[in-house]
Formats: sequence, C-alpha cells, structure tokens
Amino acid sequence: MAGTEQQTRSRVEAANSADSDFPIQNLPFGVFSVADGAPRCGVAIGDMIVDLAECEAQGLLEAQGTFSAPHLNDFIALGRPAWDRTRARLTELLAEGASEDVPLVPMADATMHLPIRVTEYTDFYASKNHAFNVGVLFRGPENALPPQWTHMPIGYNGRASSVVVSGTDIRRPMGQVKGENGPEWTACRRLDLELELGAVVGADSQMGQRVSVDEAEKMIFGYLLLNDWSARDIQAWEYQPLGPFQSKAFATTISPWIVTQAALEPFRSEGAPRDNELLPYLREERPGFYDMTMGWTMNGQRMGQTNYNVMYYSSAQQLAHHTESGCPMRVGDLLGSGTISGPEPGQTGALLEMTQSGKSPVEVNGQQRQFIEDGDEVALYGFAQGDGYRIGFGPCVGKILPAQE
Amino acid sequence: MAGTEQQTRSRVEAANSADSDFPIQNLPFGVFSVADGAPRCGVAIGDMIVDLAECEAQGLLEAQGTFSAPHLNDFIALGRPAWDRTRARLTELLAEGASEDVPLVPMADATMHLPIRVTEYTDFYASKNHAFNVGVLFRGPENALPPQWTHMPIGYNGRASSVVVSGTDIRRPMGQVKGENGPEWTACRRLDLELELGAVVGADSQMGQRVSVDEAEKMIFGYLLLNDWSARDIQAWEYQPLGPFQSKAFATTISPWIVTQAALEPFRSEGAPRDNELLPYLREERPGFYDMTMGWTMNGQRMGQTNYNVMYYSSAQQLAHHTESGCPMRVGDLLGSGTISGPEPGQTGALLEMTQSGKSPVEVNGQQRQFIEDGDEVALYGFAQGDGYRIGFGPCVGKILPAQE
Repeated sequence: MAGTEQQTRSRVEAANSADSDFPIQNLPFGVFSVADGAPRCGVAIGDMIVDLAECEAQGLLEAQGTFSAPHLNDFIALGRPAWDRTRARLTELLAEGASEDVPLVPMADATMHLPIRVTEYTDFYASKNHAFNVGVLFRGPENALPPQWTHMPIGYNGRASSVVVSGTDIRRPMGQVKGENGPEWTACRRLDLELELGAVVGADSQMGQRVSVDEAEKMIFGYLLLNDWSARDIQAWEYQPLGPFQSKAFATTISPWIVTQAALEPFRSEGAPRDNELLPYLREERPGFYDMTMGWTMNGQRMGQTNYNVMYYSSAQQLAHHTESGCPMRVGDLLGSGTISGPEPGQTGALLEMTQSGKSPVEVNGQQRQFIEDGDEVALYGFAQGDGYRIGFGPCVGKILPAQE
Repeated sequence: MAGTEQQTRSRVEAANSADSDFPIQNLPFGVFSVADGAPRCGVAIGDMIVDLAECEAQGLLEAQGTFSAPHLNDFIALGRPAWDRTRARLTELLAEGASEDVPLVPMADATMHLPIRVTEYTDFYASKNHAFNVGVLFRGPENALPPQWTHMPIGYNGRASSVVVSGTDIRRPMGQVKGENGPEWTACRRLDLELELGAVVGADSQMGQRVSVDEAEKMIFGYLLLNDWSARDIQAWEYQPLGPFQSKAFATTISPWIVTQAALEPFRSEGAPRDNELLPYLREERPGFYDMTMGWTMNGQRMGQTNYNVMYYSSAQQLAHHTESGCPMRVGDLLGSGTISGPEPGQTGALLEMTQSGKSPVEVNGQQRQFIEDGDEVALYGFAQGDGYRIGFGPCVGKILPAQE
C-alpha cells in the first residue's frame, strides 16, 4: 500500500503542508524562467522552485552543464545514476535544518515552459473502460473492444510539434467533418479532453533492439499529466483506416512538472485484472501501475475522477511493445497512457464517455455541457496520497479560444 | 509536357550522359562523408559530389555555415531565396567551360548519410488504385475505399526515429500477429515494400496557422524516394481502430538525394481525375504533380513501374491538410506520398497488391515470391524524362536480414 516511505520535512515551509503537491518526497523536474531570464531547469518544492542551473554554478549539484539548457533532455540523457544522485543531493539540501544556501525562486514569479523537447509523441489506449465506452459510441456494442485489445497495448503516433505546456490557450480547430450532404468544413462542434498520464522516455534504444518490460521501466524518467485534446467530429470522419490524425494534432497539453519514478515508488500497484495471459514479451515481473488519483475539472467544477490503477497496460508495457518490431526510442519521447476512465460516468476522463456522445449532457456550474464550449477551462489533476503528504503533479490547464474561421 | 527547360552541359562529363540521374539541370542536395571526415552537405553532379562545405570555406558559395552541418536542416531553414541563389550559383560553377576551381569528390569514394534530421514523419495514402486494392484485401470490395477518401488526403503519423538512408540493411521485424488459436509472437511472414515519394518540408508553420495548398507548395524544399517497409501480418492484427503502428515502425528507407522543386518544375503535371470537387481548402490553382516514372526492382529484376501522376493528392495538398486543424509543421518534417500504384499488377508499388495478398505469387529471377524473403534486395527508382536528360533520384535500396528471434 501507499505511503510507506519515511516522512521528511523540508526547510521550505509550504512543502510540509499535507495538501502541497510538492513535498520533499516529490522533487519533480521542470523548466522555468523569471522576468527576462532564459529558461532553465528547476525542481519544485512547496511554493518554491530550486534553480538547478544556479545550484550547478555554485557547486551544489553536478550535472555537466545540463541544467542551464531550456529543456531537461540533456540532463535526462545522463542516465539513472545521475537522476538518483541529483535526487539524493536535493533531498539533503532541502531537508529541514539543512544549512547550505540554496537558490530558490518563488513559483509565483516564474513562468513554466515545456519540460522537455518532445522528440516524438505516442498515444495509447489502455483503459478498458474507455476503449469499450468509445468503441460502443463509434462502432456499436458488438464491435466495441477490438479483438487484439486484451493482447497488446494499441497505440498510434501523435504529433510532437503540437505538445504545449499547461496554461497555453487552445484554439478550437477547424476541420473536415461528415455533413448531411457530404463533407463540411467547420469549426469543431464536438471538442473533448482526454485525461491521461504521460511517461517521459529517459534512455535511447537502438534500431532492432527489443526492450523487455522490466528494461522498459528502467528507461522511463518520470511521469506528467497529459490532456490529449480531441475533435470528435473530425475524428469520426477521418479515422478509418489509418487512425486519428488532424483530430488530435491541434494541441496536447502537458503539466510542467515531471514526477520521477523514485517519488512514485511507494505507490506501486496492480492494474486492472487481466482477461487472458499476455504473450511473454508483455509480461512484467512486478506490477507497473501506481495507486494514484486522477481527475479533471471544468471551470472549477469537479467532473471525473478515478485512479491510474484502473489501467490495463502500464507505461513500461507500452514502451516494450513500442520496441517489439525494433523501433528505436529516444530520450524525450513522450508516451500518453490513453484516457484514464473508471467504469462509472463520474469516473470518466472524456466528455464523449461522460455524456454518451452528447446524448446525456452534464451540468457545469448550472450550465449544460455536451462537449467543451469556447471559454471553458479544463484542468487535470493527479496525486498519490501518502501518510500526511502527497505526491502531486501540479496543474495541467487549458482554456478554449474560439475558432478562427 | 516535360523537358522544355533549356539544356545545359556540365564540366563534369558524366553529368552529360542521357542516362545520368544527376545532370546539371538536377543538382540534388545530400549529406556525405569521405574516409574519416565528418558528414557534410553536398550536391550530386554526374558521378561526382560538390563539397558544399568546402565551397563555402573557399568563398564560392554563401550559406552562413550551414553546409558543414551533418544534415541539411539548417540550410533549408534559410528559406527559398537561399535555395534559389545556391542553385543559380552552382549552375554557374558547374557549367561546361566554367573556370573556377570547384571542390569535387568522386561518388565512389563517398558514404551517404540521411540528408535531413527527420523532425517528424507522416505517411499518406494518396493513390486511389492502392487504396482500393489494399481496401479490398483488408476489408472486402464493398468497404474498400473509405467514404472520406475522395474528400481528404488520409494520413497517419509515422515514426521519425526509424527512417534510415538507402543502403542500410533492414532487419525483418518480430511482432504479434493473429494465429489460429489466438495471437502469436513471430518473425513477420508477410514483409512488403511501399514505393513512395517523400516531400521534405522546408519552412515552419505556427500553431493555429492554416496553410493553403499554394502556400504549402512553396514550403516544400524537395522530394526523395521513400520505401515504407510494411509488415502486413502485424498490420492486419494491430491496425484497427488507431491505424498502423509497429507494422511500419521498424524501418523506412529514403534515398540520400533531395531533388528540388526547381529541378522538377518542367515536369509539372495533372494528377488522377477527380471523382468529386474538393472542399476549398484542398483546391490548388495549378496542378501539383509531376510526370515522373516511379518503379522498383527486386534482386535486380524489374517489378512494378508507374508514374507519380497517377496520384490523387499532391504533397502540397497533403501538407495543407496537415495544417487544417492548426497543427504546426517544422523544417525537416517528412511526408510520404503513400504507395504509388497504377491500375495494373505490373504498375503496383507493393507486393500485397501485386500478388493479391500472396494468392498470385510473382516470379523473381526464376523464384516464386509472395512477399519479401530474407536476403532479398529491393531498390526503388524514379526519374523525370527530359529531352536528352533526366532528373533522377539515384538509388533507394535496402536488403532484408533474417529476424533476430
């Protein structure tokens, strides 16, 4: 069960609050800037950011100059021993009673940037509830779950150039949809979110190299929140037979903080029960999920909430499958988990499911919603609850601007 | 019609042969190295390569240091005026009778590298013959052509990390396929090629910016040959509903030379006749195809041959569609045309079509082939035939190595 890691208090007082996303047990990595300074790497602690570039300049941390880059890719590429050394040293520097001066910046003064240069982006489809619910809506109940679904983590390549950081406004896309009398060119009428966990690949694999599930887990640097905005009307018209394309290519929002595997380790959990045994290349020695609350709000109202451990395939299984043909992976590749949905409407991670494709509108602050309207703000949240602390991701927010026709 | 550009002769004698792929009218760009030197940019002329980095060092060409990079991205990012100036100056330097010393390297001494750092890779599906043929085999004749096919260029995001340069051996992939009693883990049994033209995006577009077909054409730097190797058994099992994934992620081979739009301009051509009017965002003011022979050989034997102008959507239309939702494009993005197939079996660009999914094997040097076998070498070729010269792409070759089980 969760929360067995020894509690520690931080010299940064806000980090000791039970509802802070960023206690000393967390220490997630991101990229920030202040005023007219250049973006650089940082770590969140309470309501402050540790300026890692400045730490390195002052000799408090060693990372071969990678912390002054405007992304974490170079640091991540140093490998797991460097990740572990940095985490251990930061825990020491930030502990209550520690005396060395640590360069800290108030979060309130900082602008957050994309934490990584996204090399490539792959999105999976690993909640059985979601796959079944969406399958019913797109293809009817008899063809809902594709026959290979319980045998492999289905995924598709997304568009890395459209990944943006939390807080970026999202323009409602235009696109081609099926109309009464043939195709129409229109502003999307069925704009949706997808509540997902993103995994950041932290090591390269070579062309032709197959990575086992256990090796794959060691290749993952950490996790973030990911909203795979989706234009359902564009998707329905375009997606057969080559999959979603422009319906998913206008924007994907990620949270600015990457929570490391080390921080989540105490919350390791089984996932959903299996319908059948997996082929050996997808079996894992220990469960690769986390007991972690995942949810979303619209305009401040709580909408859907579930747990990451409802998922059927872990990020490590997805990464292993991604290499099964010999496909090379690279530092900075981003893997979306797929929409995280529990079985009940209040546990779904997309409006498509929650409203039954618009047939059962939901109420948001007294207004009816089938899909997302202009001006709506969607925020994802996620945290693993420990004993007196929680490992949180911070916000993953986007507001919808009207289409430009 | 083709070949109206004024003929010019080169000081490099081999470039004046009527069957050279690289006459002075062509001047395609690539990246090469010699002996233990670093990769750098070059231009093909006859049987020689112009060392552009050395030209720049000697003051013969100006390109802001971009030619000493191991890829063409930086040069391409300089924009169309720089492309045009470079082409004009090279034409001058390489003309018969020109007197300035030009640093030339024999092709026989050079190793070719990927010409670009592939930012992202998108593959389309723009031959109606191919889409119909494959649709019949995967879904039967009544559902062969998807309903949106004649209204939009269908595409999917591929995997940029798996793009390799001509001459790289290709390892037969392992993967999950449908077996008699559930899924099997096996070496691919239905390995195929896809004869395609690749377009190299030469300018960025911004998030939210929609690019017209005419603007899109101006954003394309040039074209190359592209073999989208495909594992048909893995594809059939995995591709519903999110499209091809690992079946296309083990390797895509491209030719080392990028033929510019300027070189192909005299061969501009109409494409396939349209079944219906396109929505305005996909209409083009002038045809965006080229009268260009495209074909492939296996183990030296000619297999399929057709013309690029059988295609239904041009690269410019594909690029415009790619931005319709506001998806940002970047210098170095690679767009595959989709398999180029004419209506007859001898005009197809994939064995899947040529052998009717293996039911009608073809003879290759006296041996039967349903799909590609270990040790087989597939070579693509392509050229536009002018009057006494041709604009060619050089070879795009890959040999299949046995799977590593």
